[in-house]
Amino acid sequence: MSGKAGLIEYADASPEVRAIFDDIMKTRQTDWINNFWKALAQDPVALRRTWESIKQIMAPGALDPLTKEMIYVAVSVTNQCGYCIASHTAAARKRGMTDAMFHELISVVGMANETNRLAAGYHVEIDEQFR
Amino acid sequence: MSGKAGLIEYADASPEVRAIFDDIMKTRQTDWINNFWKALAQDPVALRRTWESIKQIMAPGALDPLTKEMIYVAVSVTNQCGYCIASHTAAARKRGMTDAMFHELISVVGMANETNRLAAGYHVEIDEQFR
Amino acid sequence: MSGKAGLIEYADASPEVRAIFDDIMKTRQTDWINNFWKALAQDPVALRRTWESIKQIMAPGALDPLTKEMIYVAVSVTNQCGYCIASHTAAARKRGMTDAMFHELISVVGMANETNRLAAGYHVEIDEQFR
Amino acid sequence: MSGKAGLIEYADASPEVRAIFDDIMKTRQTDWINNFWKALAQDPVALRRTWESIKQIMAPGALDPLTKEMIYVAVSVTNQCGYCIASHTAAARKRGMTDAMFHELISVVGMANETNRLAAGYHVEIDEQFR
Amino acid sequence: MSGKAGLIEYADASPEVRAIFDDIMKTRQTDWINNFWKALAQDPVALRRTWESIKQIMAPGALDPLTKEMIYVAVSVTNQCGYCIASHTAAARKRGMTDAMFHELISVVGMANETNRLAAGYHVEIDEQFR
Amino acid sequence: MSGKAGLIEYADASPEVRAIFDDIMKTRQTDWINNFWKALAQDPVALRRTWESIKQIMAPGALDPLTKEMIYVAVSVTNQCGYCIASHTAAARKRGMTDAMFHELISVVGMANETNRLAAGYHVEIDEQFR
Repeated sequence: MSGKAGLIEYADASPEVRAIFDDIMKTRQTDWINNFWKALAQDPVALRRTWESIKQIMAPGALDPLTKEMIYVAVSVTNQCGYCIASHTAAARKRGMTDAMFHELISVVGMANETNRLAAGYHVEIDEQFR
Repeated sequence: MSGKAGLIEYADASPEVRAIFDDIMKTRQTDWINNFWKALAQDPVALRRTWESIKQIMAPGALDPLTKEMIYVAVSVTNQCGYCIASHTAAARKRGMTDAMFHELISVVGMANETNRLAAGYHVEIDEQFR
Repeated sequence: MSGKAGLIEYADASPEVRAIFDDIMKTRQTDWINNFWKALAQDPVALRRTWESIKQIMAPGALDPLTKEMIYVAVSVTNQCGYCIASHTAAARKRGMTDAMFHELISVVGMANETNRLAAGYHVEIDEQFR
Repeated sequence: MSGKAGLIEYADASPEVRAIFDDIMKTRQTDWINNFWKALAQDPVALRRTWESIKQIMAPGALDPLTKEMIYVAVSVTNQCGYCIASHTAAARKRGMTDAMFHELISVVGMANETNRLAAGYHVEIDEQFR
Repeated sequence: MSGKAGLIEYADASPEVRAIFDDIMKTRQTDWINNFWKALAQDPVALRRTWESIKQIMAPGALDPLTKEMIYVAVSVTNQCGYCIASHTAAARKRGMTDAMFHELISVVGMANETNRLAAGYHVEIDEQFR
Repeated sequence: MSGKAGLIEYADASPEVRAIFDDIMKTRQTDWINNFWKALAQDPVALRRTWESIKQIMAPGALDPLTKEMIYVAVSVTNQCGYCIASHTAAARKRGMTDAMFHELISVVGMANETNRLAAGYHVEIDEQFR
C-alpha cells in the first residue's frame, strides 16, 4: 500500500461524500475540490465533522474571513506544514491578501517565533498586569 | 545563580538601556515596562535590536496593529509560550480585541493546529493549483 | 558534499555495522534495511545505541507492539516528520493496523493538537483533582 | 482583565451550557466538570462543537478508549501542554492505564521525539517501500 | 493520585537505582541528584537506558562538553521545556558559560526560530549547492 | 500565482536589494546568493532587517561562528525545517564542522528532544538549585 494519500475523486465518491464535496464547492464558490478533502474522504465521518467545524469557524463573525485565513497561515508556518501553508496562503490571496499584507504577515510570524524563544530562554515571569 | 531572569529595573539601568525603555513607553503610550524587556536588558545589544525590529514590524502598515497582535497570539498559542500568550493577549485587548474576537481567534488557532496534523497524517500532496 | 544522507549499504558496511543490520532484519523478520538505519550507519556508535534503545522500547511489554507503533505515528504526525510518519505508518500496518484504526488514530491526533491550543489560549489552570 | 481563564461554574451557566455540562458528566460518568470545559464555556458555540467532536472521536470504535487516551497523552507530551498532560494522564489511568503502561508510553514518546530529529538531521529520504 | 512526579529519593531507592544515582553523582562530580532522575527512577529500565545514553552522548568527543550543553539549551528553548532550560542552563554555566556566551546563545536560538519560519512562509526551495 | 517563492535574481534586483546582496556576498566571502535571500528580497525592508540582525548575531563574539552555526542547525532540526537544516549544515561544514562533530551534534539534538518529553511526561518540577 502506498504511503501517499489515497485520494477519493468526485466521480468515485459515495453519495454521502459527494454531498459534502458539493457543499464545500458551493460554500467556497469554486468548482473543484482540493486534495485535503479528497484524502479525508477516506473517512467520511471525519470528513463531515472537519468540514462542519471549518465551515462554522471560518464563516464571517467578529473576525472577517481574510483575517481568519491569515491566522491560519500563521499557525501553519509556525508548524512547518507545507500543504497547509500553500493552501491557506492561496485562500488568503483569494480573499484579498496583497503582497504587502503577506510580507507583513510573515514578518510578524517570524518575529513572534523569535521572541517566544527569548521569553523562554530568559525564564521571563508573567507580569502582574497580564494575569 | 537564579534560573529566573535577572530583571533590570529602570532605576538601575544604564543610560543606553533607559533610552530604549523610554522609547518603548513612549511608542506604546504606557508608563511601565514589562518583564520581557527588563530581562532582555541584560544584553543591551539584543534589547536594542529586538525593540527596533518589533517597533518596525508591529507599526501600522498593510495590516493594522490589532491584526498583527492577534497573529502574535496565534503563534504564541501554537508554541505554548505562556508569557507570550499573556502579554500579547493583553496587547490585543488594549488595541480593541473583544471577547467575541478572542473566542474566534482561539477557535481558528485550534482548528489550524488540528488540520495541520490531518494533512500530515494523510501525506496530502500539494495541489497543482496551489503551487 | 551532498546534503542528502550518505546511505551505507550492507555491501559496503563494516562488520560492526553489518552485525547491527543483521540484528535489525532478524528482529523485524524482514530482508531489507530502511534508509533511516543506512543513514545512521555513518555513525556506528549512534547506530548501535539507537537500535538497542528502539529494540528494547518497542518490544512487547505492558503495551503491545501495535499500540507502540501507533503512539510513534502520533508523535511523528504532531512533529510533521514526513519520513517518520511514512515508516511508522507502514510498521503499524504490518502489525495489524486496519484502515479504520488508522482513521481513528489520525482523528485523535488532530483533536489533541486542537485542544492543546484551546487549553493554552484560555490559560486553563490544572484542576486540583489532576495534581 | 485577568489573563487567567474566566471559569463558568455550573451554578452560573446558561441553560445551553448546563445541558452540555450535563452531557459531559453523564458520558464520562463523573459528577464534576474540569476546568477546560468551564473555560471553554465562555464561548458556548465552541464548547458545543468541541464537546461533540471529542465525544465522537473518543468513543469506542476500531480503537478502544484507553488506547485513544494514551495517544492523547503522546501528543500532549510532544507539545509540552501541561494541562493536557495532566488531564489525559488522569483519564488514561481511570480507563486502566497501569504504572507499567504509563512508563512504556513515555519511553515510546521520548524515543519517537528523538528519532524524528535524527531522521531530519540526516535528511533521510523516504524508502520506495514506504511510499 | 498526584499528577506530579513521584520522586524516588536516594534513601528509598532500590540497590539497582542507587547504583545509577551513584554513577550520576560520580560522573558529574556532584553530591546530589536532580528531580529528573528521581522521577525517571520510577522506571528503572528507562533510568538506566537514559543515563547510559546521556553519559555517552555528553562525554567529551569531537565537541567539548560546554558546546554540547549549549546545544541542549538551544533545543530546550525551542521546545519551550521549562525544566530542561533551567537544568541545562545551570549545567552550561557550571561548565564555563559566561553571561556574554549565554546572551549570544539565546540570540542565535531566537534568530534561528525566526528564519525557520521565514523560509517556510516563503516556501524557499533548497539550493542545488546545499543538496 | 505560484505558491513557490518568487526569487529575485541579482540581475533583476533594485539597487537597494543589490547593495544588500553585495554585502551578504562580501561578508560571507562567496560569489552567490542562496534562495533564502532571493525570496526575502520580495520584501526589501524585511531583507535589510533580517540580514542586519543575522550579520550582527552570527559575527564572532563570546561564541565562535562555528558554534553559532551548530546551534542554528540544532534549532532547525528540532523544528523540522528542511531548508534551514540544509543551508546551515552547509555553513557549519564550511566553517570547519567535521563528520565526527556533525554526528555528535545530531546525537545531542536527538537526546535533548527525547529528554524534553521525559521531563514533560513525568511533570518534573524544577529543583531549587536550578531556580
